[in-house]
Amino acid sequence: MATNMQKSTAVLLIHCPDKQGLLALVTEFINKNNGNVLYLDQHVDRQEKLFYMRVEWDLEDFEIPKNKIADYFTTLIAHKNEMTFEIHFSEEKPRMAIFVSKISHCLYDLLARYTAGEWNVEIPFIISNHPDMAEVAERFGIDYHIFPINKSNKDELEPKEIALLKEHKIDFIVLARYMQIISDEFITHFPNRIINIHHSFLPAFVGAKPYHAAHERGVKIIGATSHYVTTELDAGPIIKQEVTHISHKDTVTDLIRKGRDLEKIVLSKAVSKHIDRKLLVYNNRTVVFS
Amino acid sequence: MATNMQKSTAVLLIHCPDKQGLLALVTEFINKNNGNVLYLDQHVDRQEKLFYMRVEWDLEDFEIPKNKIADYFTTLIAHKNEMTFEIHFSEEKPRMAIFVSKISHCLYDLLARYTAGEWNVEIPFIISNHPDMAEVAERFGIDYHIFPINKSNKDELEPKEIALLKEHKIDFIVLARYMQIISDEFITHFPNRIINIHHSFLPAFVGAKPYHAAHERGVKIIGATSHYVTTELDAGPIIKQEVTHISHKDTVTDLIRKGRDLEKIVLSKAVSKHIDRKLLVYNNRTVVFS
Amino acid sequence: MATNMQKSTAVLLIHCPDKQGLLALVTEFINKNNGNVLYLDQHVDRQEKLFYMRVEWDLEDFEIPKNKIADYFTTLIAHKNEMTFEIHFSEEKPRMAIFVSKISHCLYDLLARYTAGEWNVEIPFIISNHPDMAEVAERFGIDYHIFPINKSNKDELEPKEIALLKEHKIDFIVLARYMQIISDEFITHFPNRIINIHHSFLPAFVGAKPYHAAHERGVKIIGATSHYVTTELDAGPIIKQEVTHISHKDTVTDLIRKGRDLEKIVLSKAVSKHIDRKLLVYNNRTVVFS
Amino acid sequence: MATNMQKSTAVLLIHCPDKQGLLALVTEFINKNNGNVLYLDQHVDRQEKLFYMRVEWDLEDFEIPKNKIADYFTTLIAHKNEMTFEIHFSEEKPRMAIFVSKISHCLYDLLARYTAGEWNVEIPFIISNHPDMAEVAERFGIDYHIFPINKSNKDELEPKEIALLKEHKIDFIVLARYMQIISDEFITHFPNRIINIHHSFLPAFVGAKPYHAAHERGVKIIGATSHYVTTELDAGPIIKQEVTHISHKDTVTDLIRKGRDLEKIVLSKAVSKHIDRKLLVYNNRTVVFS
Repeated sequence: MATNMQKSTAVLLIHCPDKQGLLALVTEFINKNNGNVLYLDQHVDRQEKLFYMRVEWDLEDFEIPKNKIADYFTTLIAHKNEMTFEIHFSEEKPRMAIFVSKISHCLYDLLARYTAGEWNVEIPFIISNHPDMAEVAERFGIDYHIFPINKSNKDELEPKEIALLKEHKIDFIVLARYMQIISDEFITHFPNRIINIHHSFLPAFVGAKPYHAAHERGVKIIGATSHYVTTELDAGPIIKQEVTHISHKDTVTDLIRKGRDLEKIVLSKAVSKHIDRKLLVYNNRTVVFS
Repeated sequence: MATNMQKSTAVLLIHCPDKQGLLALVTEFINKNNGNVLYLDQHVDRQEKLFYMRVEWDLEDFEIPKNKIADYFTTLIAHKNEMTFEIHFSEEKPRMAIFVSKISHCLYDLLARYTAGEWNVEIPFIISNHPDMAEVAERFGIDYHIFPINKSNKDELEPKEIALLKEHKIDFIVLARYMQIISDEFITHFPNRIINIHHSFLPAFVGAKPYHAAHERGVKIIGATSHYVTTELDAGPIIKQEVTHISHKDTVTDLIRKGRDLEKIVLSKAVSKHIDRKLLVYNNRTVVFS
Repeated sequence: MATNMQKSTAVLLIHCPDKQGLLALVTEFINKNNGNVLYLDQHVDRQEKLFYMRVEWDLEDFEIPKNKIADYFTTLIAHKNEMTFEIHFSEEKPRMAIFVSKISHCLYDLLARYTAGEWNVEIPFIISNHPDMAEVAERFGIDYHIFPINKSNKDELEPKEIALLKEHKIDFIVLARYMQIISDEFITHFPNRIINIHHSFLPAFVGAKPYHAAHERGVKIIGATSHYVTTELDAGPIIKQEVTHISHKDTVTDLIRKGRDLEKIVLSKAVSKHIDRKLLVYNNRTVVFS
Repeated sequence: MATNMQKSTAVLLIHCPDKQGLLALVTEFINKNNGNVLYLDQHVDRQEKLFYMRVEWDLEDFEIPKNKIADYFTTLIAHKNEMTFEIHFSEEKPRMAIFVSKISHCLYDLLARYTAGEWNVEIPFIISNHPDMAEVAERFGIDYHIFPINKSNKDELEPKEIALLKEHKIDFIVLARYMQIISDEFITHFPNRIINIHHSFLPAFVGAKPYHAAHERGVKIIGATSHYVTTELDAGPIIKQEVTHISHKDTVTDLIRKGRDLEKIVLSKAVSKHIDRKLLVYNNRTVVFS
């Protein structure tokens, strides 16, 4: 769905216990107040009896002022129906920080898209535990902050990172092959707002060196998985996965090379969905709206 | 979407010019009359300003009698909104005829699914222009009618086929590698109700011997396409396509062999969608509901 | 690679420690004795320093009598080079037994290919622990033996199965969704000659109910894996894997339905490779010749 | 196949009429002169009776001096067997020019790989018919030459381009979404050495605006094709193709967005194969060695 970026639009993301008439209720709220629905996708999990919805509408003739929509919606609909919801406006550009270590392919892919204007996002800076990617950041004119984090100094340096992220009002973080485990404390500051790329088709090959493990096991496909980071390693809600076929001819080096193309595409697709507010998380799974 | 087959349900397929509030209107109609929506998918083509919708609901407590739903819906909603719609009920088993020539893989796949109870469909008979597949029909205990159609006798034999199809109240026809062109006259009796499998990724390699053409052109992927038959050869609305990678090592014989797996899966997926009433056709394209 | 089935050909499968000149040595042996090479594929694992090769040649003008080729090859080449090899002739039809429980889709796919003459194989009978599939066997005119094996009687019934298999000179066994664990003792009788289909992309979701586990984990792709059975559950050498994309909309029932198409295609592709003598196993991995 | 880049190696690409013993002949030539084969892949087209081979070997202990290998091979083997061959050495870095217009995604992908050291190639400059991408070239520190070519001045400007390419000893050209047709005269200077990316799965949707055509036709998959440029538009030998699934929900804008990821990956994979000397062209088709 391509949305006209010039238009001022609102996006509403909803989840709640399912019951009859929820869809009609929400669309009526928009229609009666003269909002033109541009996009609507909903999902009902019948097993869990949960309702999920994303609706986007044109604000041009909408009769409720932008800053009062959340209030009205809470009172008139959300409260009565036990809804959890978020509302976003097209003018708000989410602010994204990239974390990187020594590997460049995901970083280049993110920055190329950003620079080409593919995404409605602001990237104020890159954070790294190594100096290696400073040169790439410089090519694209983006600030590069080094926090040489390791196990022993993590307790000391992470609060400084968090402070920097808060100061710059960072909304979400993309780990572009960042090779350092983030503490549980750090994650609590960005719940479902840290996107990682893991170089295997999870849940196979959790942890370090998945291509070595894949080669050892003799699999005929390898994959990459983007997911939100939770406190359990490589076990967060999966956003996107892709795979490619391999053969007995492929060495570990070949897998690493072939995997790079998967990783960068999968990570960027997950980032796109996040920027477009098309992701909802529940029960450690994602709803990915079309 | 798995629907509980024991339940009595209604499926409504709608398309009409888009305008505000259509979704609310339809869902309200169901909700107010105490119908529980089990499934809903809609699509708005913004360029063509067209609205498409499929909704399925539980009839258990629905207050409008089954045989009056179409009337009520026409009067209350469809007429005012220039809607074209179809309504189907879960108790109605669509009746399907298979047309086949000399090749068995698609036929076996259809009959195996049918026999295993995968589909809510009735297959009263198979029609062929050759005797070769009679044995397969017999294995599955299905009638097999031979109409030895060729160019010279088509005008004479097709009306007899049509009569047989009408007599047995056949709803739709599946061409399971049927190697004989169906006349325009025949097609008018089953508009968007004849499903063909073409052994290429259309629109590439229209017509006869697509694997030979693919080999000659040196493509690196081959495909299969299921589509509704229209009067223009291999140009009808596409329902489903799949591809597989090939290499310079593959001979035409290899392509034919690899293609078989594509053809049978693609054809069966298209047939599934048709049986589940999940297809709408417009402007020679399909909306395939989820 | 399509081979002309009318021709009398020999297939040689070789593996040994790698060293210079092995390929030249083997091809010279064939050429000097007037054998025309129809197919050759080789692989060198540089890390493990191992050499793998499959070569097929026309026996028409070959100067060494068929029944002496193995002897000559052993003395002249294999012994000096620490080669392990197998030799097969196109006239030998491998004999395959199918094991099945209550699910029909893989069974139908195997039997449809067999009946259509796709494979150079003989299937004398089907073995099952349940009576359910007897009807399918009967449709295809194949004997069906019931061994109602469970944990408590396995020790008693498996030897009878093995006796039946040996009596009918069964070369290899295909587990077409056979839902009963085969004992270690049984496996030793058919090393790398029992092909299983597991309904996940191994090593993810080993064991029972993989589609439930996949749904629970929220993966975005599901897969199927065919592998040789070893004494460790779902851990044998992988022959073939395929995957398909799924979404949050898919229930466990949908995954089971979508998985069926993967399972049958993946299993049949593995069986094809085995019948064509295109598989070599080493270090719990397979070399799959083209 | 990962080759150790530090080693000095030779790559031989051969094609000729097939006959018995060619493989043994070539491998013997290398073995007898103490060359250690690192890689070998061959293909016989039985229909056309043609033999294709790529072999790479370690030159460390090879007894024929590098500058005499071609001579010796011609005299001893090639001449007698009507072989066409090329020989390349690992020290020779092929020199590549990129042609670009106004679209950046393929350009970024090529330059990111180049800068990250993924390829054994030299890129002295970028040529464009527009100034738009000068900024990208500058980010990566690569010269950018503008030739504002259009139909009317092509005869005048192309010779200047060719002169520049020759002066800098450019081996091959990559058209990274270059939107200007190259003249037949130009192509004769770089036969099978101009790689294009076309944004459709050829031969479907030849020519301009393939995504519009794909949307209009209602296909369910879109693709991208990299091929060598010949004098017939979009009809040259295909190197690599990839596809992705789309649905009725996708607008032309969505297709363009989804296609970008295909285009850049497919183009870069084709460029990799060309750099690694893994491509042979015959009868307007490619042999792509593993």
